[in-house]
Amino acid sequence: MTAPVGADVEDGPLAIICGGGPFPFAVADAVMRHGRPVLLFAIRGWAEPERVAHYPHHWAGLGDFGWFRRAARDAGCRDVVFIGTMLRPKLRQLCPDLTTLSYFPRLIGLLRGGDDHLLSGIGRVFEENGFRLLGAHQVAPEILIPQGTLGRHAPSERDRADIIRGLAVIRVIGPFDIGQAVVVANNYVLAVEAAEGTDRMLARVADLRRDKRVPLTGRIGVLVKGPKPHQDRRLDFPSIGAETIRAAAAAGLAGIAVEARGAITADLGAIVAAADAAGLFVAGVAADAAGGQT
Amino acid sequence: MTAPVGADVEDGPLAIICGGGPFPFAVADAVMRHGRPVLLFAIRGWAEPERVAHYPHHWAGLGDFGWFRRAARDAGCRDVVFIGTMLRPKLRQLCPDLTTLSYFPRLIGLLRGGDDHLLSGIGRVFEENGFRLLGAHQVAPEILIPQGTLGRHAPSERDRADIIRGLAVIRVIGPFDIGQAVVVANNYVLAVEAAEGTDRMLARVADLRRDKRVPLTGRIGVLVKGPKPHQDRRLDFPSIGAETIRAAAAAGLAGIAVEARGAITADLGAIVAAADAAGLFVAGVAADAAGGQT
Repeated sequence: MTAPVGADVEDGPLAIICGGGPFPFAVADAVMRHGRPVLLFAIRGWAEPERVAHYPHHWAGLGDFGWFRRAARDAGCRDVVFIGTMLRPKLRQLCPDLTTLSYFPRLIGLLRGGDDHLLSGIGRVFEENGFRLLGAHQVAPEILIPQGTLGRHAPSERDRADIIRGLAVIRVIGPFDIGQAVVVANNYVLAVEAAEGTDRMLARVADLRRDKRVPLTGRIGVLVKGPKPHQDRRLDFPSIGAETIRAAAAAGLAGIAVEARGAITADLGAIVAAADAAGLFVAGVAADAAGGQT
Repeated sequence: MTAPVGADVEDGPLAIICGGGPFPFAVADAVMRHGRPVLLFAIRGWAEPERVAHYPHHWAGLGDFGWFRRAARDAGCRDVVFIGTMLRPKLRQLCPDLTTLSYFPRLIGLLRGGDDHLLSGIGRVFEENGFRLLGAHQVAPEILIPQGTLGRHAPSERDRADIIRGLAVIRVIGPFDIGQAVVVANNYVLAVEAAEGTDRMLARVADLRRDKRVPLTGRIGVLVKGPKPHQDRRLDFPSIGAETIRAAAAAGLAGIAVEARGAITADLGAIVAAADAAGLFVAGVAADAAGGQT
């Protein structure tokens, strides 16, 4: 799964379909460092125009599949990476071109169901059209969270027990294509992420604590985050950023545990610095950390 | 488990330890209708003083176990029911009497862990002191949600599929002592309840829809609620009320499905009337409703 990394420069530039946030640029930079040219297809309304401007790019709408297919082929792109934030669209937001329109019967079925279902279906459409869909972590492995304690602070015994419980919860809800994160404090599951996203879940924990809905004081509890078991990692990978650290600190947590190589970050250095400053630990943990090792 | 119901009048009055909300009074009324006298031990800060005043009662603090034991024995109470809302207390909120204080080493262990753990531990303390702990549903079975479509509106095919998915999620998270409710819409799990409670979870779904974080329009989705598999039903039972209907309507849901005889309500008539008026269905569903029947 991690073969690529610049090995196939002969396949032409890498097409990077860019959603919002810093990830598309972290990936583009890494790919170029590995010696492969890139071509960004920046999604209107999501990708950041000022940053996109620094790379070879086209702007595209979500419904422009026919146009994308032509432009990517013309540029000699065979490999495609999807990266960046984007919410589930409604069909009528798509402004489809004719090719996209021909896929509507399938899309309607895909929109009914969880994110995994939608994304793997979209992935198949790209593959059927002769593209090779790669994961951002395959072309830019440096974005993966490594294993171990990553900053100055380390998880305590109690934190480690909370991490193990959190990983177990993530494991059982995985088949339901729910969220990818939970908050566990002192062995008590405070929050489970579903459609709201990690930052809103952390804001909820901050509210619960401020409103004294949970009897906790001091820095306690861990955000545990990992990929869903059947998640297509080429299309949807859990991610953390400096805002995750800020939200976890505001929720009074002791730290963040992410499944090692099961989540990505656009700037590990910035995260570790933010965590060190806030007094939080950040750890990459083995998915099968039942023994308690981080 | 459902033997009691007024059968043991010779055991003296039923001691009802009352938290907040309407349940203590619904239970007291039902028990008196069944011919058994009651004695309310109203918890200061939680039970509603105006309503408590209509029943034989004492006021008590959460830490008054020694005093309660004496008062209940003096009144000839052997059976005890806990009912009504109460948040997890902090030890230092307890103002313990000496007897309660002697249980502190155990309480400290109980407060570490989920609600089930805490409640079953407290239940054991009552039993060790010669009380028989009964479930409110055993002395007042009329508070249990019955099976079937309870109001004017019935779940659609799609709603039924959402109900089945919701029940499956509740089943897998049960062992973790998390929440008792999820929201599923069009086969997509929108929210999982943990420490925040059902009303806040529903408010979150309303927010997600208002902010267009989920691509749903029209009345769609179901609140699915049931007991945790290992929950001690004498101490903690999921409940719904008219405010649940209001919150579900505000979240744009099509209806509410509750595990039949697996949840309680203080006033079924009021709930059904509120649901009918709001255009929502309310259904009591079999826990093993994998076949789709309601």
